Amino acid sequence: MNTLSPYTFVLFGATGDLSLRKVLPALFRAFCTGQLEAGAHTDTAGRILAVARTPMDAAGYHAWCEQHVRAHIKPDVWDEPTWKRFLATIDYMPLDLGREAEFRVLAERLAKRQGVRIFYLATGPSLFIPICEGLRSAGLNENSRIVLEKPLGNDLASSEGINDAVGAIFREDQIYRIDHYLGKEAVQNLLALRFGNAIFEPLWRRELIDSIQITIAEAIGVEGRGEFYEQTGALRDMVQNHLLQLLAIVAMEPPLSMNADAVRDEKLRVLRSLRQMDDESVAHNVVRGQYGGGAIDKSAVPAYVDEPGVPPDSQTETFVALKAEIDNWRWAGVPFYLRTGKRLGERVAEIVVNYRATPYPLLGEATAQPGANRLVIRLQPNESIRLYCLAKQPGEGMNLQTVHLDLAFDQFFKGHRMDAYERLLLDVINGRLALFVRRDEQEQAWRWVAPIQAYWARQAKGPKRYAAGTWGPPAASALLAQSGRCWVEEEN
Amino acid sequence: MNTLSPYTFVLFGATGDLSLRKVLPALFRAFCTGQLEAGAHTDTAGRILAVARTPMDAAGYHAWCEQHVRAHIKPDVWDEPTWKRFLATIDYMPLDLGREAEFRVLAERLAKRQGVRIFYLATGPSLFIPICEGLRSAGLNENSRIVLEKPLGNDLASSEGINDAVGAIFREDQIYRIDHYLGKEAVQNLLALRFGNAIFEPLWRRELIDSIQITIAEAIGVEGRGEFYEQTGALRDMVQNHLLQLLAIVAMEPPLSMNADAVRDEKLRVLRSLRQMDDESVAHNVVRGQYGGGAIDKSAVPAYVDEPGVPPDSQTETFVALKAEIDNWRWAGVPFYLRTGKRLGERVAEIVVNYRATPYPLLGEATAQPGANRLVIRLQPNESIRLYCLAKQPGEGMNLQTVHLDLAFDQFFKGHRMDAYERLLLDVINGRLALFVRRDEQEQAWRWVAPIQAYWARQAKGPKRYAAGTWGPPAASALLAQSGRCWVEEEN
Repeated sequence: MNTLSPYTFVLFGATGDLSLRKVLPALFRAFCTGQLEAGAHTDTAGRILAVARTPMDAAGYHAWCEQHVRAHIKPDVWDEPTWKRFLATIDYMPLDLGREAEFRVLAERLAKRQGVRIFYLATGPSLFIPICEGLRSAGLNENSRIVLEKPLGNDLASSEGINDAVGAIFREDQIYRIDHYLGKEAVQNLLALRFGNAIFEPLWRRELIDSIQITIAEAIGVEGRGEFYEQTGALRDMVQNHLLQLLAIVAMEPPLSMNADAVRDEKLRVLRSLRQMDDESVAHNVVRGQYGGGAIDKSAVPAYVDEPGVPPDSQTETFVALKAEIDNWRWAGVPFYLRTGKRLGERVAEIVVNYRATPYPLLGEATAQPGANRLVIRLQPNESIRLYCLAKQPGEGMNLQTVHLDLAFDQFFKGHRMDAYERLLLDVINGRLALFVRRDEQEQAWRWVAPIQAYWARQAKGPKRYAAGTWGPPAASALLAQSGRCWVEEEN
Repeated sequence: MNTLSPYTFVLFGATGDLSLRKVLPALFRAFCTGQLEAGAHTDTAGRILAVARTPMDAAGYHAWCEQHVRAHIKPDVWDEPTWKRFLATIDYMPLDLGREAEFRVLAERLAKRQGVRIFYLATGPSLFIPICEGLRSAGLNENSRIVLEKPLGNDLASSEGINDAVGAIFREDQIYRIDHYLGKEAVQNLLALRFGNAIFEPLWRRELIDSIQITIAEAIGVEGRGEFYEQTGALRDMVQNHLLQLLAIVAMEPPLSMNADAVRDEKLRVLRSLRQMDDESVAHNVVRGQYGGGAIDKSAVPAYVDEPGVPPDSQTETFVALKAEIDNWRWAGVPFYLRTGKRLGERVAEIVVNYRATPYPLLGEATAQPGANRLVIRLQPNESIRLYCLAKQPGEGMNLQTVHLDLAFDQFFKGHRMDAYERLLLDVINGRLALFVRRDEQEQAWRWVAPIQAYWARQAKGPKRYAAGTWGPPAASALLAQSGRCWVEEEN
């Protein structure tokens, strides 16, 4: 069992959507499994200080939690007495961000407590700078960590603006930028598979790999959050962060160590090696789509433009597919196809590594088919690895057929699995930066998507429509078909 | 469906053990599944002419088959009307090998039939030469194939003697030397896996492989055949043929084509690259054992020396383990550990490829453990492939644990599976030599085991005892332990 040093977890935006859906349930899960305990005694090593504008006391906030947070806790961890003990670790303090004096009150309250201070900003990005400045005014930027949630800006300039302002107050090693994909077990496992085994790495290169596909597909639509999504779109919401982070982990060189900066240095090197796009390559290699009406699981679902909060002439993309190229020694010439979207055929996140065909068809044409050998690493919904290869059909002659080797992780690893937020919050509490995005990575990713944003902004024609429940507009298939490839959609 | 040209299958030793247990049941299976049919009509393309010393007619032989062969046919293919139709394709002819005139009678009978003549010698090796000479005397060595069964001699000299004599009468491309391991689907599949996929071959070399283990283990003892086994022993019965053939297929270079001679050329090159042993290396690298009493499946079983037909001071080995080395560019420095035995812990035949550890322990000591990455190709009892690797344990930190990807062939390939004999007999009928052992391969294998035979013959001390139901004498483990390795015994 981990032993924690004392800490105070200050949750700004404590009555907001993110707090109730993600942060508090994750903290409760960690509490339940004893991961927040200090060494010697069984009490929690830290306390939570919930902060929001609403005037109320701790009892009032506990009542609010009962009403809003409980529903987001999965039944498998629910336990009434533990929940009561958890609530007892939560204080509440109303705070008006506009009044510096209130930050001094916060500082006085925190002065009574030992240990590190964690400021978790579960607020909109427009409040990041006011909060940071308030913390500095009260001297709270020392001996503390600050946690920022996406969206960290909506383009390179706004991202730099936030980073400059926060960076003037906190050192980079105090800043924890969350990309919750990095907290997923399956993504961590990618590192383990690549660098903990001798058998994958020798094949992991241009000489042996034909192409790589990374898909994050959702079956849901914008789920009532149309107004938010209108300002975001799939490129900002998924490509700039999650998909590029996955690409970086798949493509990175072995790091010098598993230290946070060693790993982030290597991811940065991949992002810097991504071939920068120009108008022509955006036009050729990037497809944007927007879902129309359709059917999911035999129920009719509305078009994006018919969702609440979405104007009928919206040009916001709910789907992106693109071809990226990495100009380095390992990956030159190997296309990385990324795609993400809402209202697609299935909820799935997976990485497909297509190996090159055999060098000559000694055993017939089957061995020359693209994808005859491929590794499919499924991140969700069920983490698994599947390795496709060819084997002989029983009987006369030598006729090959596709077979696969399977590994389902839930068959090996029973019991409690940490969700991404739980893992990341524990890492913040423990001061482990490896799974958080460094400023240079984040800005490099914005730099790479900038030509796409710029090109789209100049086009009169918006995203291509696709029927809900399909795999995006036909242009996404054409993107691969022009080189004789196709998207791999796995059967379960 | 295959279409066959007409043939006559002449079965010498038609009332012997091999005929009733293997040859006739395999022919019946092939008959049942239509594989012996000619193209246009549904009748069999060929006929069987059973030959033995016993005077009887076809009806008598059919009665003998009813009595002796039926029991060896698996219930899943049994069908009474088909069996009757099968028997109708079998003639019988008594023949005294000592009388040349009887071969002329045989020639007259065969002259009435079209097509190729197959002479299957299901007899002891002492009869090979008399039969071949008889066939020549009647001009039957033209337009024919001859099938020889093991043991093909009991050392290099006797093997050369048989090959010289048979080779004076039949061309090499008329001679089908059976090693029934080569007829196994799983062994064929080894070729498919290695040369039909792009992902295995790049790892299949000294730079990435630590060691290879090949095991053929039986749980049974000599099963009443002590007298036969006394003249054989495990080295001749299993190592010289089956184990060295498996080693050759595992280690061979990609052949120029899948033609018989291209494949056999490459196997021969491996056998020629095996480092020849001297007394010292036999003493160090070869372990022989003989089973004592013990328990298998909780039943007491007798020691080898207490089996019927075995003298109490027998020095015949029922177990061999050895370390072989291949002096070529691909395998230099990679030990190949072979073992075989009777009355071992389990009936299993498998190939274990142990990959080297990661080049440096970036993710902890687990990655430096030998066998952390290994490929286990199980040939029997159930054909499967299992790839072991390390993955991250769920939860905090980066702790690795062994997991495996699995492929069970019977889940992919349902329905009729040809057994080894069925496959090989069909290949003989179709004139396909690829799965038969060429003279030079066979003699090279004898040449390689010769120093072991010679060394043992000079030792006063015989094989080491091991308890039935164990994995051989402790010296077999010590053989690997001296370099820090151990035998991999899989759990199912």
